[in-house]
Amino acid sequence: MALTLSELARLVDGDIVRGGPDLLIEGIGALDEAGGSELSFLGNEKYRNQYLATRAGAVIVPRGVTEGPETSALIAADNPSFAFGLAVKHFVAATARVFTPGIHPRACVDESAKLDPAKVRIHAGAVVMAGAEIGDGSEIGPNTVVGEHVKIGRDCLFYANVSIRERCLIGDRVILQPGAVIGSDGYGYEVIEGRHVKVDQVGIVEVQDDVEIGANTTVDRARFGRTVIGQGTKVDNLVQIAHNVQIGRHCLVVSQTGIAGSVKLADYVVAAAQVGIAGHVKVGAKAILSARTGVTKDIEGGKTYGGNPAHDYMEEQRSRAHVRQLPKLIERVKALEKKASEE
Amino acid sequence: MALTLSELARLVDGDIVRGGPDLLIEGIGALDEAGGSELSFLGNEKYRNQYLATRAGAVIVPRGVTEGPETSALIAADNPSFAFGLAVKHFVAATARVFTPGIHPRACVDESAKLDPAKVRIHAGAVVMAGAEIGDGSEIGPNTVVGEHVKIGRDCLFYANVSIRERCLIGDRVILQPGAVIGSDGYGYEVIEGRHVKVDQVGIVEVQDDVEIGANTTVDRARFGRTVIGQGTKVDNLVQIAHNVQIGRHCLVVSQTGIAGSVKLADYVVAAAQVGIAGHVKVGAKAILSARTGVTKDIEGGKTYGGNPAHDYMEEQRSRAHVRQLPKLIERVKALEKKASEE
Amino acid sequence: MALTLSELARLVDGDIVRGGPDLLIEGIGALDEAGGSELSFLGNEKYRNQYLATRAGAVIVPRGVTEGPETSALIAADNPSFAFGLAVKHFVAATARVFTPGIHPRACVDESAKLDPAKVRIHAGAVVMAGAEIGDGSEIGPNTVVGEHVKIGRDCLFYANVSIRERCLIGDRVILQPGAVIGSDGYGYEVIEGRHVKVDQVGIVEVQDDVEIGANTTVDRARFGRTVIGQGTKVDNLVQIAHNVQIGRHCLVVSQTGIAGSVKLADYVVAAAQVGIAGHVKVGAKAILSARTGVTKDIEGGKTYGGNPAHDYMEEQRSRAHVRQLPKLIERVKALEKKASEE
Repeated sequence: MALTLSELARLVDGDIVRGGPDLLIEGIGALDEAGGSELSFLGNEKYRNQYLATRAGAVIVPRGVTEGPETSALIAADNPSFAFGLAVKHFVAATARVFTPGIHPRACVDESAKLDPAKVRIHAGAVVMAGAEIGDGSEIGPNTVVGEHVKIGRDCLFYANVSIRERCLIGDRVILQPGAVIGSDGYGYEVIEGRHVKVDQVGIVEVQDDVEIGANTTVDRARFGRTVIGQGTKVDNLVQIAHNVQIGRHCLVVSQTGIAGSVKLADYVVAAAQVGIAGHVKVGAKAILSARTGVTKDIEGGKTYGGNPAHDYMEEQRSRAHVRQLPKLIERVKALEKKASEE
Repeated sequence: MALTLSELARLVDGDIVRGGPDLLIEGIGALDEAGGSELSFLGNEKYRNQYLATRAGAVIVPRGVTEGPETSALIAADNPSFAFGLAVKHFVAATARVFTPGIHPRACVDESAKLDPAKVRIHAGAVVMAGAEIGDGSEIGPNTVVGEHVKIGRDCLFYANVSIRERCLIGDRVILQPGAVIGSDGYGYEVIEGRHVKVDQVGIVEVQDDVEIGANTTVDRARFGRTVIGQGTKVDNLVQIAHNVQIGRHCLVVSQTGIAGSVKLADYVVAAAQVGIAGHVKVGAKAILSARTGVTKDIEGGKTYGGNPAHDYMEEQRSRAHVRQLPKLIERVKALEKKASEE
Repeated sequence: MALTLSELARLVDGDIVRGGPDLLIEGIGALDEAGGSELSFLGNEKYRNQYLATRAGAVIVPRGVTEGPETSALIAADNPSFAFGLAVKHFVAATARVFTPGIHPRACVDESAKLDPAKVRIHAGAVVMAGAEIGDGSEIGPNTVVGEHVKIGRDCLFYANVSIRERCLIGDRVILQPGAVIGSDGYGYEVIEGRHVKVDQVGIVEVQDDVEIGANTTVDRARFGRTVIGQGTKVDNLVQIAHNVQIGRHCLVVSQTGIAGSVKLADYVVAAAQVGIAGHVKVGAKAILSARTGVTKDIEGGKTYGGNPAHDYMEEQRSRAHVRQLPKLIERVKALEKKASEE
């Protein structure tokens, strides 16, 4: 994966201006982020200050540039941006996950599980329970738990320490980041003689094709029926999706958003970070909920919302501006009162 | 667990109006949620539109109804709601967890742990560390970790990938959803010469009888003494409970709520979703904190709160309405100013 | 670890006033938190009410005090606060983690991993993958996963069920609480023909020396380059840190805060609980973000902020007060209007 400076120069069709040919470069980064073993590039004069301050191990610069930060090797190229793109391709390919089928001897796969050992990968410490089914090309990460009678499609990728509870359904090409929980009990209790008595949560979660679920996100199973994450929807980290929620197709649900029970999102809804949606609410297709919006009743699709409770985003912006003008408004009212009392 | 349509008809004392007797029904769902292998019911004419659009595999309808969605089998019954209840009972019973004692050969139980192998269930990959005690009837999920000298009561149910750190105390009939963390260190540092130096967190967490803790929720151990979750309290997913918090009995703490250090909740407090409670605050019995309330000082019990900082819920609602009237108010002040200047 | 009452009295140079000398005391706690097997102290008359109501098993009191709660043993000492400090020292030492090197037979360490089995501790169920490096004195908790080619420094302490994905870099003396996730994919997609197509996240996370990361907190890897948590920074539970975030040194990031992609925090920034910081924003050194602040654009260091969007903390406090005066302000405007119309 790592390349020497001279290998890099050859790869990007450039020339070493400065730096030892054996310098090892292990990755890539922006000028202001790259470290001593990383490559960056100067593609535009407006980044010159970042260039002069960079700690990148090597920088691709336009031909003719010979000065630069002391600690960086320099490679000159005709088109630094294009040249950098070639290096990016190399490192992306080098870090691409390779699917190697096989069941690790320290994995624990119940003998009643249905899977083709020659076509799936089960990592060390993973637990695949009775009756579970795993499609070809799928990879179950280390210490991940696949519950009883869970069905998993093809070409899925589950990382470490994921928990999928019994009977949930996972489509094809689903990605679950570490620590994600699918199928925990919905939060439902009845009060009986002053105590909260658990209401059985006998439904499941259905995660459709091409969904991705972020790290430590939680998706509760339905009371009855199913909680649904629609095809192509992408959910970020630490999101809460409660029981019986129905999320449409191709939605984006950003980090730390909470979606209460029985909410329905139509297709292509965007919920930015830290949004909250109250129980049983419906959100129309292509609605955009800006960060921290609080949705308390049904809202139409195709619009952008803000505030709590949610209303038109631009109105919310104006409303905030008005709140900040309040001290002045109070002064103005005082002045009017004074004038009125003098009359 | 699955039933054929004819078995279902017999179970609910109904008659097949339409559909093959061998059609397999695997679960139940609401009209607008049920899929092709699920049963639903039409109990009330106001749901007729949902009925006509349903994708349920079968629907229980009042006798006399013969039309309906093309893809659904129909069963006629005298009282569809009652008949559906019978089906619900069947499926709840069919999915009920059966407690089967035994220690999985791929579990790792320290020889000094105190438990009766004939009366507890320890799943594959679970780790029970030195000196831990587990009461009869308790079940430790796959890849869950029970730390050193943890004491667990009877009839507990811990799901997958739960972490319980050393010396914590868990009562009877406690349920921990996947990924829950009990006994992580409290967040405490002293500044010494410009560095944050860790303050030892030597206390524990005490989780009392009949508590349930949601998926990926975190409960920190006390600096000294104990963080307490009182009897019968139910905590939802992704909640943060900091060190030395004392939660009373029969409280409800909903998803993504954060409770800072040394807070005390009296009994029967309800904290709705995304609430925040600042350190050392006391909340009185039966206080209700509506979603997103921010509590910054002690508040009385028996009342409903909203806003940040928390105040009376109805006042908060009015206050929000007033903010949204601000543009008009500003216009009104302008008009007054204009008039005053003309005088 | 436990002491009898007579051992305790000797340890703190006090005398038993009341209680059996063989009473076992297992820990310490504040007067209002300590239970029947814990020691507390009465150091100040203002805590007398707490003293009279305490359920502590034993209390250290000033000499001369002979009355107290019936269920508590009493030890008299010249300086109860100092005496209690001696007991604290004992119990802190007794609960201090002892580092005992060794690889548990139920751990799974890839043969290509670089570590000295005599100098690291790997717990049961931990998975150390190909090419990982672990420095001397480091401890990998039960069921924790160390991904391929991860490099871990010396004297680190990782608790249970932690996930560290491939190639991430962890410094020396880093503490990871249970369930923490390091190196999950950043949330990045391109829209192609109406679908969100995943953008490869080929960078890493660099966690520098002396960092602590809370339970179930998530830190995403960079798109390219690295997400950085600077030296000495302490992150609380359930925090989200997105791709390419750069957190400076000695920052404090409190529970449930969310930091979006490419944000830069300079050194000594404090983000209190439930803060949100929008993508690409820069926060200056020593800025203090009070709880729930929403930062939407670059802000200067050395100041305290509140509100959403963030502005001066005191202004925010005043602004909230003004909002709560709105009903009265509206009345005043009405009165002015009435007066004006009467003229």
